[in-house]
Amino acid sequence: MITSVENSKVKEISKLKLAKYRKSEQKFIVEGSHLVEEAHNANVLLEAFSIEEKQGYTTLSPVVMKKICNTDTVVKEIGICKMENKTNLCSRILILDGIQDPGNMGTLMRSANAFGFKTLFIGNGCVDIYNDKVIRSSQGAIFKLNFLFGNVLEFLLNLKDYKIYGTNVVRGISLDKVKRFNKMAIVLGNEGNGISKEVEELSLDNIYISMENTESLNVAVAGSIIMYELK
Amino acid sequence: MITSVENSKVKEISKLKLAKYRKSEQKFIVEGSHLVEEAHNANVLLEAFSIEEKQGYTTLSPVVMKKICNTDTVVKEIGICKMENKTNLCSRILILDGIQDPGNMGTLMRSANAFGFKTLFIGNGCVDIYNDKVIRSSQGAIFKLNFLFGNVLEFLLNLKDYKIYGTNVVRGISLDKVKRFNKMAIVLGNEGNGISKEVEELSLDNIYISMENTESLNVAVAGSIIMYELK
Repeated sequence: MITSVENSKVKEISKLKLAKYRKSEQKFIVEGSHLVEEAHNANVLLEAFSIEEKQGYTTLSPVVMKKICNTDTVVKEIGICKMENKTNLCSRILILDGIQDPGNMGTLMRSANAFGFKTLFIGNGCVDIYNDKVIRSSQGAIFKLNFLFGNVLEFLLNLKDYKIYGTNVVRGISLDKVKRFNKMAIVLGNEGNGISKEVEELSLDNIYISMENTESLNVAVAGSIIMYELK
Repeated sequence: MITSVENSKVKEISKLKLAKYRKSEQKFIVEGSHLVEEAHNANVLLEAFSIEEKQGYTTLSPVVMKKICNTDTVVKEIGICKMENKTNLCSRILILDGIQDPGNMGTLMRSANAFGFKTLFIGNGCVDIYNDKVIRSSQGAIFKLNFLFGNVLEFLLNLKDYKIYGTNVVRGISLDKVKRFNKMAIVLGNEGNGISKEVEELSLDNIYISMENTESLNVAVAGSIIMYELK
């Protein structure tokens, strides 16, 4: 049982709270028994820790667990996972251009998995997908998707055979009129500013969701409605 | 200009960070110039405060503003609003049975406003709708809806002329097969546990959203997709 927060293993885990260490180590933390189980099922679980004695788990004292965890609520189990390199281009791609809220990112992953958008392109300005809040909101969907990372504009310019739609609050084609194609990609923009200017200049066909008024929707909601309709 | 956090006005405002004072005073705080403006437009703004000199606003020093505000980012303006008592039953009612996450609550308000579900019934176990995170996520929708509060079961038993649908991850009628009625009410349940047992026992017709797999959706996403389809 590890009882000291000065333990080298604890320090190693704690480092993974920072995006730059997650990237250099190609590892990330999941919190809670549900996510540890999902990580195990996905074959990415490297090591598991519990505050209770349990076979296959290293035991941590509650104090040490509290130091490691980001949540206010008490977590009993955590896992260290390896990042995977699944970069398949599936028939439905969700392209994220500057999604910054971790809750939105995780929720979009969850919906993408539910509606068969199995490839996510994560643009450079997005929140780190291995952030603890993203993982919590994703509810395990993070283990079931393919991720690509990079510059959205470059990716779009090289994306052949796909019908690409942008999204926009008011302009474009109403969602219920959008034609479905075998291969489709949807671009979602930043919470405050929408799609970036350089992508806007590509003049993609835009999808909009018809509403009672000119209000906007939460981006995770808008993206999920579009994925539901085009699944 | 108010520069002391000991100022009686500041203390009065700070009290409104607690749900029980909001309830007894029938007032709540909005943060940020966008929401202050929305409150003004909705005729519920009682008093406005800014860190800059501005006509109609009481000036607060940045230190005082920081003490009052809940956000990490710097807010320049806040407003004190009165709670309204708009309890109309509109033709579309969203009934919330134990929604606890403030982000989900605010997002549901935003979608409800966009899709014409103008009446929200807030069950007893829900997060306080005047919580700062709820208001922020609602993006001003809180000023445009009618709210009723109380016991969900009692409300449902007294709701005449409405076609009421529960929601469920797997059982029931697929959303694309749901009949539309002039007057409809949709019940959404708690993030972890779904609809409460006592409401479940009413055996309402359930709507489910068809998915690729047996995953669940974020409740704000599920509710928004349903409202979009039945708007």
